[in-house]
Amino acid sequence: IRTVRPEQALVDKAGFRHFMAKEIAEQPAVITRTLDAYLDNGRIDLPAPGLDFNTLDRLTLVACGTGHYACYTAKYWFEALARIPVDIDVASEFRYREPPLDPASAALFVSQSGETADTLAALRYCKGKISTIGAVVNVTESSIARDSDLVFPIHAGAEIGVASTKAFTCQLVVLLLLALEAARQRGTLTEEEVTGRLTELRALPGLINHALALEERIGRLARRVAEARDVLFLGRGAMYPLALEGALKMKEISYIHAEAYASGELKHGPIALIDEHVPVVVMAPTDTLFDKTVSNMQEVMARGGRVLLITDAEGASAAGDGVWETLILPEVAPFLAPILHAIPVQLLAYHTAVEKGTDVDQPRNLAKSVTVE
Amino acid sequence: IRTVRPEQALVDKAGFRHFMAKEIAEQPAVITRTLDAYLDNGRIDLPAPGLDFNTLDRLTLVACGTGHYACYTAKYWFEALARIPVDIDVASEFRYREPPLDPASAALFVSQSGETADTLAALRYCKGKISTIGAVVNVTESSIARDSDLVFPIHAGAEIGVASTKAFTCQLVVLLLLALEAARQRGTLTEEEVTGRLTELRALPGLINHALALEERIGRLARRVAEARDVLFLGRGAMYPLALEGALKMKEISYIHAEAYASGELKHGPIALIDEHVPVVVMAPTDTLFDKTVSNMQEVMARGGRVLLITDAEGASAAGDGVWETLILPEVAPFLAPILHAIPVQLLAYHTAVEKGTDVDQPRNLAKSVTVE
Repeated sequence: IRTVRPEQALVDKAGFRHFMAKEIAEQPAVITRTLDAYLDNGRIDLPAPGLDFNTLDRLTLVACGTGHYACYTAKYWFEALARIPVDIDVASEFRYREPPLDPASAALFVSQSGETADTLAALRYCKGKISTIGAVVNVTESSIARDSDLVFPIHAGAEIGVASTKAFTCQLVVLLLLALEAARQRGTLTEEEVTGRLTELRALPGLINHALALEERIGRLARRVAEARDVLFLGRGAMYPLALEGALKMKEISYIHAEAYASGELKHGPIALIDEHVPVVVMAPTDTLFDKTVSNMQEVMARGGRVLLITDAEGASAAGDGVWETLILPEVAPFLAPILHAIPVQLLAYHTAVEKGTDVDQPRNLAKSVTVE
Repeated sequence: IRTVRPEQALVDKAGFRHFMAKEIAEQPAVITRTLDAYLDNGRIDLPAPGLDFNTLDRLTLVACGTGHYACYTAKYWFEALARIPVDIDVASEFRYREPPLDPASAALFVSQSGETADTLAALRYCKGKISTIGAVVNVTESSIARDSDLVFPIHAGAEIGVASTKAFTCQLVVLLLLALEAARQRGTLTEEEVTGRLTELRALPGLINHALALEERIGRLARRVAEARDVLFLGRGAMYPLALEGALKMKEISYIHAEAYASGELKHGPIALIDEHVPVVVMAPTDTLFDKTVSNMQEVMARGGRVLLITDAEGASAAGDGVWETLILPEVAPFLAPILHAIPVQLLAYHTAVEKGTDVDQPRNLAKSVTVE
């Protein structure tokens, strides 16, 4: 556990009102650093000895809280890009249900601090049962890193705000690089396709700068969201885990009861909650699922729900009338949308919390590193 | 789709104020009927041609809404009892993420109506990719049943209330019987152990009658819960999916924003929501996870949260001071707790909705059978 002294902490805010604001703003720089660490001459260069994905039948990804939602996003990437099936679970459930494990599988344990107690216990459950144990951590001199065969640092730098932001996007970047490397090794993407994806990934920090430029607009929006008692977040596919993360972030620092649903599940119950008092944040980049999401969005609007649509220019014009507010992000390849869309979601939670006057960096009841079970 | 004419519906309420109340009360009878259909001389007798679990590496369970939570519970059963790994997903995510499937696996599609559009599309995605497709349905002359290799009827009888109750517990019973049969075939339980479990299962309808006797007490409690804007449901292990179902039920008919968390995830964010206005329903039968759950419960109480503990007599006395209200269920084998605990959860949602004066059997925005995507 790395401790930060208060005076050091004050220095580190670098003119920002809160550590969280600083850490959100840092993302283009830290993601560039992460990419620099993992890319060499346009090719993926994993920390030695690397990981042989061809020997694996499956992959297990275990974490808690925000790290779990990074794993959930990565499940979509590993399955779609590398056709490798992925099991995910929160550590506190995983360790006690004692799941049957495939010996020809690897498990990755994702933790910012590397000290999360349940995640460490889950890791120890896997020891001797599977081929490889990997750690995706920010703090490399941590228990989870020490107990792993392989360590994948996320290079996010010290994260002080309790609500994780830059560690989340750096976790996503590292997991995405692993998924692309798996796809390359398994031949589900050609070398050229991988190179193309890496070029797009290299452009991501620039796109994140564009997303950060929405901050003033989001700040104004947050005044309205701060009046709400409840907020729903909706997404499909790889945007669903980001909806979960958006709801968690909102809950953690603004104390508004935010909850996420896979858009297609809305009709199976939660739509009963919708009325004119519930803002519904819909994350819908233009992709193959866009039309389905728009149809779910229209069901929300037909019931008086106020939709805040986060999309791109094409999506904004295709969404039609009746949307409460639209945030337009730069166009991005669908596989990168979960990382880019994380920015407005973080900014929305942050400004809503500021509006409500909560203790943003140290929200009630929460600790940065959960080292008890 | 089976349509019910209004006059027929009126007849069928059998003196109850709502269909939902009738359907909750019917559970001992319908579960007995389900057991009669699947048990022959104390042995499990699956509909022909049965299912050979020894040829399967994995099992996939797909559904929507309440059916998904039945599948989630069953994942714990199949893994713990039969050591067969289980993948679960909601149908709308499953079908579009096009998951890689193991040819040596079977998939079960769970749907009350057998007409759920997304579930049917998910089933069709699996065709030709895996060894066996099974339907767990209430309506056997349905599209999902017709498109399956095997049909496992749940025998719940017509369910009219939009919020599923008896179909949920009958789905659980059928899935549990399949897990026990898998355990018998795979030798993870001996014949004697399976027989012992079946004897306990045969006693379940009697225990459910005891749980139903809590109705008056739950009705009084519901007056307090009806004042809440938010409710949290917590559970660990196989009680976690039931927490999800409890929150869904509450949301669907009372329009209170209820949400469930795996108890161990509380500290990773949602505990920030807790204050004296948020009732927290904790489902904790005496089992190996009881102490962990009590510790999470105490964290809630330390932050002013009002805990409604659903447990057994031993759990009630072990839980200590400070609990807001306790509902005591009869002692039951841990593997049956998710079915028995469903009863107070259903009754709590029902009476909270009645207290709030909502249209219990036909809540706003919802349809019984979701035959559109």
